[in-house]
Amino acid sequence: MSSDLVLGIDVGGTAIKAAAVTRTGTMREKRVVPTPGGGPKAIAACVAGIARDIQAKAGRAFAVGVGWPTPVDPQRGVVLFDNKLGSAGVNVAALIRRATGLPACIENDANAAALAEYLYGAGRGAGSLVLLTLGTGVGGGIVLGGEVWHGRDGAAGEIGHIKVRPGGQRCLFCRRRGCLEAYAGAQAILRRYRAAGRKAEGMKDIVSAARRKERPAVRVVSEMAEMLGMAVADLANILNPEIVVIGGGVARAGNILFRPIRAAMAREALPNVSKGLRVVPAKLGNDAGLLGAAGCAWKRFGTSASSPTSTTGNRRLRTASSN
Amino acid sequence: MSSDLVLGIDVGGTAIKAAAVTRTGTMREKRVVPTPGGGPKAIAACVAGIARDIQAKAGRAFAVGVGWPTPVDPQRGVVLFDNKLGSAGVNVAALIRRATGLPACIENDANAAALAEYLYGAGRGAGSLVLLTLGTGVGGGIVLGGEVWHGRDGAAGEIGHIKVRPGGQRCLFCRRRGCLEAYAGAQAILRRYRAAGRKAEGMKDIVSAARRKERPAVRVVSEMAEMLGMAVADLANILNPEIVVIGGGVARAGNILFRPIRAAMAREALPNVSKGLRVVPAKLGNDAGLLGAAGCAWKRFGTSASSPTSTTGNRRLRTASSN
Repeated sequence: MSSDLVLGIDVGGTAIKAAAVTRTGTMREKRVVPTPGGGPKAIAACVAGIARDIQAKAGRAFAVGVGWPTPVDPQRGVVLFDNKLGSAGVNVAALIRRATGLPACIENDANAAALAEYLYGAGRGAGSLVLLTLGTGVGGGIVLGGEVWHGRDGAAGEIGHIKVRPGGQRCLFCRRRGCLEAYAGAQAILRRYRAAGRKAEGMKDIVSAARRKERPAVRVVSEMAEMLGMAVADLANILNPEIVVIGGGVARAGNILFRPIRAAMAREALPNVSKGLRVVPAKLGNDAGLLGAAGCAWKRFGTSASSPTSTTGNRRLRTASSN
Repeated sequence: MSSDLVLGIDVGGTAIKAAAVTRTGTMREKRVVPTPGGGPKAIAACVAGIARDIQAKAGRAFAVGVGWPTPVDPQRGVVLFDNKLGSAGVNVAALIRRATGLPACIENDANAAALAEYLYGAGRGAGSLVLLTLGTGVGGGIVLGGEVWHGRDGAAGEIGHIKVRPGGQRCLFCRRRGCLEAYAGAQAILRRYRAAGRKAEGMKDIVSAARRKERPAVRVVSEMAEMLGMAVADLANILNPEIVVIGGGVARAGNILFRPIRAAMAREALPNVSKGLRVVPAKLGNDAGLLGAAGCAWKRFGTSASSPTSTTGNRRLRTASSN
């Protein structure tokens, strides 16, 4: 019986999430373990253990895709730079391949999440998608014609650093002024909210306060939505995508966020790109990274008949299908 | 003897430019004629006449590519909307095919110019390119991985409407505030320059005055460059392209424009996307549109062996090469 599973692995700074994933994006035997110290070799060894454990329960996988929290060159499997895990210049795909005995590929985690929403989530069936992920900062990924757009240095999709208010608030990450992240990243929002003398553990508290119409909360949430709308308008004018997906915990806030985002986008983008542009919440939550990593493995090592965008067929070796 | 020429036709609001074009982008028998009134059928008849004339001198062409000054769907050959030539909804590719007897394709003129700079001009050898064209307004085109990116509605590349100064100057085209075009389009610049009580026939006069350090001229040119740099920074953060090419007459101004553009870009974009990003003047001038239209025809109707990105081989039917 030939395998119809890949492994999707999402390596983060604090946790590794993993599961076996079918062609259509169904997860089996999901695991979450702390990221080990000791750099990429220790991580590869840890991934190999998880891979054995998952396959013992879910059945054999034929490939593994890894999401990595740094810019990567997915063609070569190499990390481009890294100030988190000490993996700069390392061929992580080769490490994982040796450790697991499976064909392996890597992708930046934000790009993987974008691919996941495109293949299995809010962007299913769209021709092009931009994902904005709202967390501590603002991440992003771009999928055009079914492929992640990486750019020259694997650095495309730095949507958090679009200038939405030149000369405005200073970005806590890049220290420039007026970046989207300075208005829509949780760290920046919490700092400004607390500076107004208010208390909040996280964005959830601020959104709740905004629902109660508490002034400072309404102000930061309105500003966040306004700036997101401006950035989406720029993306729409530049790329004319079919769908913009907004993920991260705060994206679950619903209309209090999405209504003003859509209004600002429609006001600022040209009518022919804003009309019909869907701006919607992400669907896959915290699983987006591992599902996208699995999607990369399906695209790279599955046959065209078994790739995630196709609806029928079993996996065969890629080389067999290209004859 | 099999043909190794296509026809490139650039249909503008006032003139039609045309030539026979070799695989490597050499033009033969260039013609410029006024655009006839009477809509797309009259234009197709005019193009057929030019095509006969050029081929009588340069030799037979095997296909024709047409640049059109509106958004188009190049797959179907149809004009998407049009307030210039009355061609909305018309299958211009089919009209041209019938009129000339040659396989025909169409492309938006700004996209065609971007493809031309990518294939034959300043972007030769680059993996990805963004073109900004500075004219009355600011146009643009995006080439990613060798292909023009059209977006969902053929409206991608509206770079003139990136918001570089939200709440700033009103855009003369879209009436929104803070568009790049409001700071870098000739119409807007001339209006502001004249409002300062100065006289100028066109951008050339303003650039000359800026070189003489005349204050109002220095101010509008500096602002133009600053805003172009901001827009290029956004493009770099989003797309991480290999090269940004700036065309249009004023792009010939050289360092008075390019030095501050590059400085603003480097200041505003993240270091990993700005480092190594080339920001350079276009090379093909007014021929970019017709060369890009020809490039489309080469890409679409040439074999892979004879396509413009390849260096050897003769034209054969595409169907013959795909076996």
